[in-house]
Amino acid sequence: MIKELRELTGAGIMDVKEALNEAGDDRDAALDILRKKGMAKLAKKADRVAKEGIVESYIHAGGRIGALVELNCETDFVARTADFQNLAKELALHIAAANPLYVSRDDVPEEVIAKEMEIYKEQSAGSGKSEDVMQKMMEGKLEKYFEESCLLEQPFVKDSEKKISDLISESTAKMGENVQVRRFARFMLGN
Amino acid sequence: MIKELRELTGAGIMDVKEALNEAGDDRDAALDILRKKGMAKLAKKADRVAKEGIVESYIHAGGRIGALVELNCETDFVARTADFQNLAKELALHIAAANPLYVSRDDVPEEVIAKEMEIYKEQSAGSGKSEDVMQKMMEGKLEKYFEESCLLEQPFVKDSEKKISDLISESTAKMGENVQVRRFARFMLGN
Repeated sequence: MIKELRELTGAGIMDVKEALNEAGDDRDAALDILRKKGMAKLAKKADRVAKEGIVESYIHAGGRIGALVELNCETDFVARTADFQNLAKELALHIAAANPLYVSRDDVPEEVIAKEMEIYKEQSAGSGKSEDVMQKMMEGKLEKYFEESCLLEQPFVKDSEKKISDLISESTAKMGENVQVRRFARFMLGN
Repeated sequence: MIKELRELTGAGIMDVKEALNEAGDDRDAALDILRKKGMAKLAKKADRVAKEGIVESYIHAGGRIGALVELNCETDFVARTADFQNLAKELALHIAAANPLYVSRDDVPEEVIAKEMEIYKEQSAGSGKSEDVMQKMMEGKLEKYFEESCLLEQPFVKDSEKKISDLISESTAKMGENVQVRRFARFMLGN
Protein backbone atom coordinates (compact mmCIF):
# COMPACT_ATOMS: atom_id res chain seq x y z
CA MET A 1 0.00 0.00 0.00
CA ILE A 2 2.89 2.35 0.82
CA LYS A 3 4.47 1.65 -2.55
CA GLU A 4 1.17 2.21 -4.38
CA LEU A 5 0.50 5.48 -2.57
CA ARG A 6 4.00 6.70 -3.30
CA GLU A 7 3.56 5.95 -6.97
CA LEU A 8 0.17 7.63 -7.09
CA THR A 9 1.23 10.81 -5.31
CA GLY A 10 4.99 11.05 -5.65
CA ALA A 11 5.16 11.59 -1.87
CA GLY A 12 8.07 10.40 0.31
CA ILE A 13 7.90 7.24 2.49
CA MET A 14 7.59 9.19 5.74
CA ASP A 15 4.72 11.29 4.38
CA VAL A 16 2.91 8.16 3.21
CA LYS A 17 3.34 6.40 6.56
CA GLU A 18 2.12 9.48 8.39
CA ALA A 19 -0.92 9.77 6.13
CA LEU A 20 -1.81 6.08 6.56
CA ASN A 21 -1.51 6.52 10.30
CA GLU A 22 -3.74 9.57 10.25
CA ALA A 23 -6.26 7.74 8.00
CA GLY A 24 -6.33 4.59 10.14
CA ASP A 25 -4.80 2.59 7.25
CA ASP A 26 -7.67 3.52 4.91
CA ARG A 27 -6.09 3.70 1.46
CA ASP A 28 -8.50 6.23 -0.07
CA ALA A 29 -8.48 8.51 2.95
CA ALA A 30 -4.67 8.43 3.00
CA LEU A 31 -4.66 9.29 -0.68
CA ASP A 32 -6.85 12.30 0.03
CA ILE A 33 -4.53 13.46 2.81
CA LEU A 34 -1.48 13.11 0.58
CA ARG A 35 -3.16 14.93 -2.27
CA LYS A 36 -4.17 17.82 -0.03
CA LYS A 37 -0.60 18.05 1.23
CA GLY A 38 0.64 17.94 -2.32
CA MET A 39 -1.73 20.73 -3.30
CA ALA A 40 -0.58 22.87 -0.39
CA LYS A 41 3.03 22.41 -1.46
CA LEU A 42 2.07 23.20 -5.02
CA ALA A 43 0.36 26.44 -4.10
CA LYS A 44 3.84 27.63 -3.18
CA LYS A 45 5.07 26.49 -6.56
CA ALA A 46 2.48 28.38 -8.56
CA ASP A 47 4.81 31.35 -8.90
CA ARG A 48 7.63 29.29 -10.31
CA VAL A 49 8.03 29.65 -14.03
CA ALA A 50 6.69 26.82 -16.20
CA LYS A 51 8.27 27.28 -19.58
CA GLU A 52 9.49 23.82 -20.42
CA GLY A 53 7.03 21.19 -21.63
CA ILE A 54 5.66 19.84 -24.84
CA VAL A 55 3.45 20.70 -27.81
CA GLU A 56 1.11 17.79 -28.61
CA SER A 57 -1.56 17.26 -31.24
CA TYR A 58 -4.50 14.97 -31.83
CA ILE A 59 -6.27 14.33 -35.10
CA HIS A 60 -9.80 13.01 -34.75
CA ALA A 61 -12.37 11.41 -37.03
CA GLY A 62 -10.06 10.88 -40.01
CA GLY A 63 -8.89 14.47 -40.14
CA ARG A 64 -12.19 16.29 -39.59
CA ILE A 65 -11.09 17.66 -36.22
CA GLY A 66 -7.61 18.53 -35.01
CA ALA A 67 -6.29 19.90 -31.74
CA LEU A 68 -2.95 21.37 -30.74
CA VAL A 69 -2.01 22.00 -27.12
CA GLU A 70 1.00 23.42 -25.27
CA LEU A 71 1.49 21.90 -21.84
CA ASN A 72 4.13 23.52 -19.66
CA CYS A 73 6.17 22.31 -16.72
CA GLU A 74 9.29 23.63 -15.04
CA THR A 75 12.04 21.30 -16.17
CA ASP A 76 13.00 19.44 -19.29
CA PHE A 77 13.36 16.36 -17.07
CA VAL A 78 9.65 16.27 -16.27
CA ALA A 79 8.76 17.21 -19.86
CA ARG A 80 10.42 13.98 -21.01
CA THR A 81 8.56 11.68 -18.64
CA ALA A 82 5.92 9.34 -20.04
CA ASP A 83 3.40 10.62 -17.46
CA PHE A 84 3.74 14.19 -18.63
CA GLN A 85 3.65 13.29 -22.31
CA ASN A 86 0.63 11.10 -21.71
CA LEU A 87 -1.16 13.98 -19.99
CA ALA A 88 -0.47 16.17 -23.03
CA LYS A 89 -1.92 13.44 -25.28
CA GLU A 90 -5.05 13.09 -23.15
CA LEU A 91 -5.53 16.86 -23.20
CA ALA A 92 -5.20 17.08 -26.98
CA LEU A 93 -7.75 14.26 -27.34
CA HIS A 94 -10.08 15.93 -24.85
CA ILE A 95 -9.84 19.30 -26.62
CA ALA A 96 -10.66 17.68 -29.98
CA ALA A 97 -13.71 15.98 -28.48
CA ALA A 98 -15.04 18.57 -26.01
CA ASN A 99 -14.46 21.81 -27.94
CA PRO A 100 -13.45 24.20 -25.15
CA LEU A 101 -13.26 27.89 -26.07
CA TYR A 102 -10.89 29.12 -23.38
CA VAL A 103 -8.26 27.61 -21.07
CA SER A 104 -9.70 29.03 -17.84
CA ARG A 105 -12.53 31.34 -16.77
CA ASP A 106 -9.95 34.10 -16.42
CA ASP A 107 -9.52 33.96 -20.19
CA VAL A 108 -13.20 34.61 -20.99
CA PRO A 109 -13.39 38.22 -22.23
CA GLU A 110 -15.51 40.67 -20.21
CA GLU A 111 -17.77 41.33 -23.20
CA VAL A 112 -18.55 37.63 -23.59
CA ILE A 113 -19.60 37.41 -19.94
CA ALA A 114 -21.69 40.59 -20.29
CA LYS A 115 -23.42 39.16 -23.36
CA GLU A 116 -24.12 35.84 -21.63
CA MET A 117 -25.62 37.66 -18.63
CA GLU A 118 -27.81 39.71 -20.97
CA ILE A 119 -29.16 36.53 -22.55
CA TYR A 120 -29.90 34.99 -19.14
CA LYS A 121 -31.68 38.20 -18.13
CA GLU A 122 -33.90 38.08 -21.20
CA GLN A 123 -34.62 34.39 -20.64
CA SER A 124 -35.82 34.96 -17.11
CA ALA A 125 -37.65 38.22 -17.77
CA GLY A 126 -41.32 38.13 -16.77
CA SER A 127 -40.84 35.01 -14.65
CA GLY A 128 -42.18 36.96 -11.68
CA LYS A 129 -39.21 35.94 -9.53
CA SER A 130 -37.55 38.36 -7.14
CA GLU A 131 -34.39 40.27 -8.10
CA ASP A 132 -32.48 38.20 -5.61
CA VAL A 133 -33.59 34.84 -7.03
CA MET A 134 -33.05 36.10 -10.59
CA GLN A 135 -29.49 37.13 -9.74
CA LYS A 136 -28.76 33.69 -8.24
CA MET A 137 -30.21 31.95 -11.30
CA MET A 138 -28.10 34.06 -13.61
CA GLU A 139 -24.97 33.34 -11.63
CA GLY A 140 -25.79 29.65 -11.77
CA LYS A 141 -26.13 29.82 -15.55
CA LEU A 142 -22.83 31.65 -15.84
CA GLU A 143 -21.16 28.90 -13.77
CA LYS A 144 -22.64 26.38 -16.19
CA TYR A 145 -21.26 28.40 -19.12
CA PHE A 146 -17.76 28.33 -17.58
CA GLU A 147 -18.04 24.57 -17.06
CA GLU A 148 -18.99 24.08 -20.69
CA SER A 149 -16.57 26.47 -22.35
CA CYS A 150 -13.44 26.50 -20.17
CA LEU A 151 -11.02 23.59 -20.62
CA LEU A 152 -9.97 23.45 -16.96
CA GLU A 153 -13.57 23.24 -15.77
CA GLN A 154 -14.82 20.71 -18.32
CA PRO A 155 -15.41 17.12 -17.19
CA PHE A 156 -12.72 14.91 -18.75
CA VAL A 157 -14.22 13.06 -21.75
CA LYS A 158 -12.70 9.76 -20.66
CA ASP A 159 -13.81 10.07 -17.02
CA SER A 160 -16.61 12.53 -16.36
CA GLU A 161 -16.07 12.26 -12.59
CA LYS A 162 -12.93 14.33 -13.03
CA LYS A 163 -12.52 17.86 -14.23
CA ILE A 164 -9.54 18.68 -16.42
CA SER A 165 -8.24 20.82 -13.56
CA ASP A 166 -8.26 17.64 -11.42
CA LEU A 167 -6.14 15.84 -14.02
CA ILE A 168 -3.67 18.72 -14.01
CA SER A 169 -3.61 18.90 -10.20
CA GLU A 170 -2.94 15.18 -9.95
CA SER A 171 -0.05 15.47 -12.37
CA THR A 172 1.26 18.51 -10.61
CA ALA A 173 1.20 16.65 -7.29
CA LYS A 174 2.76 13.53 -8.77
CA MET A 175 5.50 15.32 -10.68
CA GLY A 176 6.20 17.90 -8.01
CA GLU A 177 6.24 20.66 -10.59
CA ASN A 178 3.92 23.41 -11.64
CA VAL A 179 2.04 22.00 -14.66
CA GLN A 180 0.00 24.39 -16.81
CA VAL A 181 -1.97 24.36 -20.04
CA ARG A 182 -0.63 27.45 -21.78
CA ARG A 183 -2.80 27.49 -24.90
CA PHE A 184 -4.60 25.33 -27.39
CA ALA A 185 -6.08 25.48 -30.87
CA ARG A 186 -8.86 23.35 -32.31
CA PHE A 187 -9.92 23.22 -35.94
CA MET A 188 -13.08 21.51 -37.10
CA LEU A 189 -13.42 21.09 -40.84
CA GLY A 190 -15.55 23.87 -42.32
CA ASN A 191 -16.51 25.31 -38.91
CA MET B 1 5.59 11.20 -72.51
CA ILE B 2 1.81 11.58 -72.91
CA LYS B 3 1.24 9.32 -69.92
CA GLU B 4 3.78 11.21 -67.81
CA LEU B 5 2.28 14.59 -68.70
CA ARG B 6 -1.21 13.34 -67.92
CA GLU B 7 -0.07 12.12 -64.52
CA LEU B 8 1.74 15.37 -63.75
CA THR B 9 -1.11 17.65 -64.74
CA GLY B 10 -4.29 15.60 -64.63
CA ALA B 11 -5.08 16.82 -68.15
CA GLY B 12 -6.96 14.74 -70.74
CA ILE B 13 -5.22 12.91 -73.62
CA MET B 14 -6.41 15.41 -76.24
CA ASP B 15 -5.15 18.37 -74.22
CA VAL B 16 -1.76 16.70 -73.74
CA LYS B 17 -1.39 15.89 -77.44
CA GLU B 18 -2.35 19.43 -78.37
CA ALA B 19 0.14 20.87 -75.90
CA LEU B 20 2.96 18.63 -77.17
CA ASN B 21 2.11 19.70 -80.71
CA GLU B 22 2.18 23.34 -79.73
CA ALA B 23 5.47 22.86 -77.87
CA GLY B 24 7.16 20.95 -80.70
CA ASP B 25 7.34 17.82 -78.54
CA ASP B 26 9.35 19.62 -75.86
CA ARG B 27 8.29 18.00 -72.57
CA ASP B 28 8.95 20.99 -70.31
CA ALA B 29 7.33 23.49 -72.67
CA ALA B 30 4.27 21.23 -72.99
CA LEU B 31 4.12 20.98 -69.20
CA ASP B 32 4.10 24.78 -68.98
CA ILE B 33 1.29 25.02 -71.52
CA LEU B 34 -0.79 22.42 -69.67
CA ARG B 35 -0.21 24.11 -66.33
CA LYS B 36 -1.26 27.49 -67.69
CA LYS B 37 -4.42 25.92 -69.12
CA GLY B 38 -5.05 24.22 -65.80
CA MET B 39 -4.66 27.52 -63.98
CA ALA B 40 -7.07 29.25 -66.35
CA LYS B 41 -9.65 26.55 -65.70
CA LEU B 42 -9.05 26.86 -62.01
CA ALA B 43 -9.61 30.60 -61.99
CA LYS B 44 -13.19 29.74 -62.86
CA LYS B 45 -13.27 27.34 -59.94
CA ALA B 46 -12.10 29.88 -57.38
CA ASP B 47 -15.68 30.79 -56.54
CA ARG B 48 -16.70 27.22 -55.86
CA VAL B 49 -16.94 26.44 -52.21
CA ALA B 50 -14.06 24.51 -50.67
CA LYS B 51 -15.35 23.18 -47.39
CA GLU B 52 -14.31 19.55 -47.43
CA GLY B 53 -10.71 18.66 -46.69
CA ILE B 54 -8.56 17.67 -43.77
CA VAL B 55 -7.05 18.93 -40.55
CA GLU B 56 -3.43 17.82 -40.22
CA SER B 57 -0.73 18.35 -37.61
CA TYR B 58 3.03 18.12 -37.35
CA ILE B 59 5.08 17.89 -34.19
CA HIS B 60 8.68 18.97 -34.59
CA ALA B 61 11.87 18.67 -32.55
CA GLY B 62 10.52 16.24 -29.95
CA GLY B 63 7.51 18.36 -29.09
CA ARG B 64 9.11 21.82 -28.94
CA ILE B 65 7.17 23.02 -32.00
CA GLY B 66 3.74 21.98 -33.23
CA ALA B 67 1.62 23.04 -36.18
CA LEU B 68 -2.02 22.49 -37.05
CA VAL B 69 -3.42 23.27 -40.51
CA GLU B 70 -6.81 23.05 -42.19
CA LEU B 71 -6.59 22.36 -45.91
CA ASN B 72 -9.83 22.59 -47.86
CA CYS B 73 -11.01 21.14 -51.14
CA GLU B 74 -14.44 20.76 -52.70
CA THR B 75 -15.25 17.08 -52.33
CA ASP B 76 -14.71 14.35 -49.78
CA PHE B 77 -13.40 12.25 -52.68
CA VAL B 78 -10.38 14.50 -53.21
CA ALA B 79 -9.95 14.94 -49.45
CA ARG B 80 -9.35 11.18 -49.18
CA THR B 81 -6.66 11.00 -51.86
CA ALA B 82 -3.06 10.36 -50.85
CA ASP B 83 -1.95 13.42 -52.87
CA PHE B 84 -4.21 15.75 -50.95
CA GLN B 85 -3.34 14.26 -47.58
CA ASN B 86 0.33 14.42 -48.43
CA LEU B 87 0.01 18.10 -49.31
CA ALA B 88 -1.60 18.73 -45.91
CA LYS B 89 1.31 16.91 -44.23
CA GLU B 90 3.90 18.93 -46.16
CA LEU B 91 2.12 22.15 -45.23
CA ALA B 92 2.02 21.27 -41.53
CA LEU B 93 5.73 20.45 -41.63
CA HIS B 94 6.48 23.68 -43.49
CA ILE B 95 4.47 25.78 -41.02
CA ALA B 96 6.32 24.21 -38.07
CA ALA B 97 9.69 24.98 -39.70
CA ALA B 98 9.08 28.34 -41.41
CA ASN B 99 6.88 30.11 -38.84
CA PRO B 100 4.47 32.05 -41.07
CA LEU B 101 2.26 34.63 -39.34
CA TYR B 102 -0.59 34.81 -41.86
CA VAL B 103 -2.01 32.64 -44.63
CA SER B 104 -1.90 35.33 -47.35
CA ARG B 105 -1.01 39.00 -47.66
CA ASP B 106 -4.73 39.77 -47.55
CA ASP B 107 -4.71 38.56 -43.96
CA VAL B 108 -2.06 41.01 -42.78
CA PRO B 109 -3.89 43.69 -40.74
CA GLU B 110 -3.71 47.28 -42.00
CA GLU B 111 -2.06 48.45 -38.78
CA VAL B 112 0.75 45.88 -39.17
CA ILE B 113 1.47 47.16 -42.67
CA ALA B 114 1.36 50.77 -41.46
CA LYS B 115 3.82 49.95 -38.69
CA GLU B 116 6.17 48.15 -41.08
CA MET B 117 6.11 51.12 -43.46
CA GLU B 118 6.88 53.45 -40.56
CA ILE B 119 9.93 51.37 -39.64
CA TYR B 120 11.18 51.39 -43.25
CA LYS B 121 10.71 55.15 -43.38
CA GLU B 122 12.80 55.63 -40.25
CA GLN B 123 15.47 53.27 -41.58
CA SER B 124 15.85 55.22 -44.80
CA ALA B 125 15.51 58.69 -43.27
CA GLY B 126 18.49 60.94 -43.97
CA SER B 127 19.73 58.72 -46.81
CA GLY B 128 19.48 61.71 -49.14
CA LYS B 129 17.51 59.67 -51.69
CA SER B 130 14.59 61.16 -53.59
CA GLU B 131 10.97 60.60 -52.46
CA ASP B 132 10.46 58.42 -55.50
CA VAL B 133 13.40 56.13 -54.80
CA MET B 134 12.49 55.99 -51.11
CA GLN B 135 8.95 54.94 -51.95
CA LYS B 136 10.23 52.16 -54.22
CA MET B 137 12.63 50.93 -51.52
CA MET B 138 9.85 50.86 -48.96
CA GLU B 139 7.58 48.93 -51.27
CA GLY B 140 10.39 46.47 -51.91
CA LYS B 141 10.82 45.97 -48.18
CA LEU B 142 7.11 45.41 -47.72
CA GLU B 143 7.20 42.77 -50.47
CA LYS B 144 10.05 41.11 -48.58
CA TYR B 145 7.95 41.22 -45.40
CA PHE B 146 5.04 39.49 -47.16
CA GLU B 147 7.40 36.82 -48.48
CA GLU B 148 8.73 36.16 -45.00
CA SER B 149 5.49 36.25 -43.03
CA CYS B 150 2.77 34.96 -45.37
CA LEU B 151 2.51 31.19 -45.78
CA LEU B 152 1.47 31.30 -49.44
CA GLU B 153 4.44 33.49 -50.38
CA GLN B 154 7.09 31.65 -48.39
CA PRO B 155 9.57 29.44 -50.24
CA PHE B 156 8.77 25.79 -49.44
CA VAL B 157 11.28 24.54 -46.84
CA LYS B 158 11.88 21.32 -48.76
CA ASP B 159 12.34 23.02 -52.15
CA SER B 160 13.14 26.72 -52.03
CA GLU B 161 12.60 27.06 -55.79
CA LYS B 162 8.87 26.76 -55.12
CA LYS B 163 6.59 29.02 -53.17
CA ILE B 164 3.84 27.44 -51.08
CA SER B 165 1.35 29.03 -53.48
CA ASP B 166 3.03 27.02 -56.28
CA LEU B 167 2.55 23.80 -54.32
CA ILE B 168 -1.12 24.64 -53.87
CA SER B 169 -1.56 25.60 -57.54
CA GLU B 170 0.03 22.36 -58.66
CA SER B 171 -2.31 20.36 -56.46
CA THR B 172 -5.27 22.40 -57.60
CA ALA B 173 -4.38 21.73 -61.24
CA LYS B 174 -3.74 18.05 -60.62
CA MET B 175 -6.85 17.42 -58.57
CA GLY B 176 -9.12 19.66 -60.61
CA GLU B 177 -10.56 21.22 -57.47
CA ASN B 178 -10.19 24.47 -55.64
CA VAL B 179 -7.61 23.75 -52.89
CA GLN B 180 -7.17 26.31 -50.12
CA VAL B 181 -5.34 26.69 -46.84
CA ARG B 182 -8.07 27.94 -44.56
CA ARG B 183 -6.11 28.53 -41.36
CA PHE B 184 -3.21 27.30 -39.28
CA ALA B 185 -1.83 27.49 -35.77
CA ARG B 186 1.77 27.10 -34.65
CA PHE B 187 2.98 26.78 -31.09
CA MET B 188 6.63 27.00 -30.12
CA LEU B 189 7.39 26.00 -26.55
CA GLY B 190 7.66 29.07 -24.34
CA ASN B 191 7.37 31.52 -27.26
